Amino acid sequence: MAKIIDGAAIAATIRAEIKEAVARLKAEHGVTPGLATVLVGDDPASATYVRNKRKACSEVGIASFGYELSASTTQDELMHLMQDLGAREDVHGILVQLPLPAHLDEQVVLAAVPLHKDVDGFSPVNLGLLGVKGRQAPFAPCTPQGCIELLDRSDIRIAGRRAVVLGRSTIVGLPVALMLLARDATVTICHSRTPNIASITRTADILVAAIGKPRFITGDMVKAGVVVIDVGINRVPDASNPRGSRLVGDVDFDEVSEEASAITPVPGGVGPMTIAMLLKNTLIAAQRRVVG
Amino acid sequence: MAKIIDGAAIAATIRAEIKEAVARLKAEHGVTPGLATVLVGDDPASATYVRNKRKACSEVGIASFGYELSASTTQDELMHLMQDLGAREDVHGILVQLPLPAHLDEQVVLAAVPLHKDVDGFSPVNLGLLGVKGRQAPFAPCTPQGCIELLDRSDIRIAGRRAVVLGRSTIVGLPVALMLLARDATVTICHSRTPNIASITRTADILVAAIGKPRFITGDMVKAGVVVIDVGINRVPDASNPRGSRLVGDVDFDEVSEEASAITPVPGGVGPMTIAMLLKNTLIAAQRRVVG
Repeated sequence: MAKIIDGAAIAATIRAEIKEAVARLKAEHGVTPGLATVLVGDDPASATYVRNKRKACSEVGIASFGYELSASTTQDELMHLMQDLGAREDVHGILVQLPLPAHLDEQVVLAAVPLHKDVDGFSPVNLGLLGVKGRQAPFAPCTPQGCIELLDRSDIRIAGRRAVVLGRSTIVGLPVALMLLARDATVTICHSRTPNIASITRTADILVAAIGKPRFITGDMVKAGVVVIDVGINRVPDASNPRGSRLVGDVDFDEVSEEASAITPVPGGVGPMTIAMLLKNTLIAAQRRVVG
Repeated sequence: MAKIIDGAAIAATIRAEIKEAVARLKAEHGVTPGLATVLVGDDPASATYVRNKRKACSEVGIASFGYELSASTTQDELMHLMQDLGAREDVHGILVQLPLPAHLDEQVVLAAVPLHKDVDGFSPVNLGLLGVKGRQAPFAPCTPQGCIELLDRSDIRIAGRRAVVLGRSTIVGLPVALMLLARDATVTICHSRTPNIASITRTADILVAAIGKPRFITGDMVKAGVVVIDVGINRVPDASNPRGSRLVGDVDFDEVSEEASAITPVPGGVGPMTIAMLLKNTLIAAQRRVVG
């Protein structure tokens, strides 16, 4: 049976470390890290995500500044806000909750986040630098960084190993592949157009699944001893659950945990790490301001 | 025996197409594509590269503006030139010949090239966007783009195939991997820290070698029918040659051509494509200016 990589516990440890560092930054430099959250429209899921992020900020002593704009906000209005936030001294990080309403140009808005405040790591410059050894990206995107941190904090070696990443989104698959590569893994990126995918997943020492297909990775698709990071969060029907459904990953946990040496559960694996990394990036942004 | 992918012939065809398109742009819009080349210091190899690029421009009717600065040029002086070139209407593309002398900050200089004039494709933004389906990078870097063009012009399918890239430099390996991925190949990136590399190269339908190790890929490291793109240019001793040396690729051509279905020679494979792609990017930069 695989060791369970407990993302909730690791994220709690990280949040505690951040809380300490935030207190130190305040005591020594009088600086409180600040995160501006920008939410446009009234999608309830997005509102929940932003609320959870602000709550997490507050728990570690990071100031958060919430901007909630109506769904009819114009591009101009939003760009003005972005400029204001870009200039503000007390705002070290800016988070634009995606997706934006369709009439707004997401790429233009994201490009308006100054690199040194891009704590979500969504700028293409950040992405471009991820794969580059020795040229540090200002910020790694939070979910991919969470995957790497789970490996590091579980003492799983990355260098010299074969990593297979399922999925090539700019949010998860591609950046996590580049980060594994920069850490000296040999990396294969698979996707919906990959034929005979099992023949590739079976070569993985480290398997990262981020394709959004419930329980896609079955026990026969991995080799014994693989380390599995499951980024998928899929809701499936479940009559035994009072809600009538439950969350599962892209990996068939029951089957694959029989083969793997270590595996993240869903929920409680990668999920809790994303917000922890957002807090970490915001702290780093503030620390960099202090040291100049 | 493999089909030889004749890069010199393909590059000649492309240059002829560009020459026609340049003439059309002049006739229809009165616009002559212009490339500024910036050479700092007196490295003879760099001077030769720049001279060849300017000669190639002239042959297809692209105007080139050569800036040759002394090795003692300051960062400030160079940045002023970059600003001037960035603003000039008749300069559609800017090429900074690398490497720059050690006292200059290459990354800062490259970042000063406006994206729409970055015909070398070396900006991290360009790199970041390469792997992103549906979000076009302004310009792909020339050598990786040359590799893809060789495949396309040889009617070699990329989508759904297994590509293995040896090397992860930001100049070649990484961008070519991202471009193959965006074209729906399943891509594995190998490098100096990859153990048992032959077991991976043998899975390749398309193999791109860009590691700078003479004849590293031997016949037993590929499967029958592989398509091989050899980016390596290595000088090795050769007593039978009047110069006492000759150029070879990263692939043992004699051995591997027995197994491959198609293969690029060295020289005369990828090499001639790099300048052809620089001309193509400069043309595109000028065309984009015309259409707004």
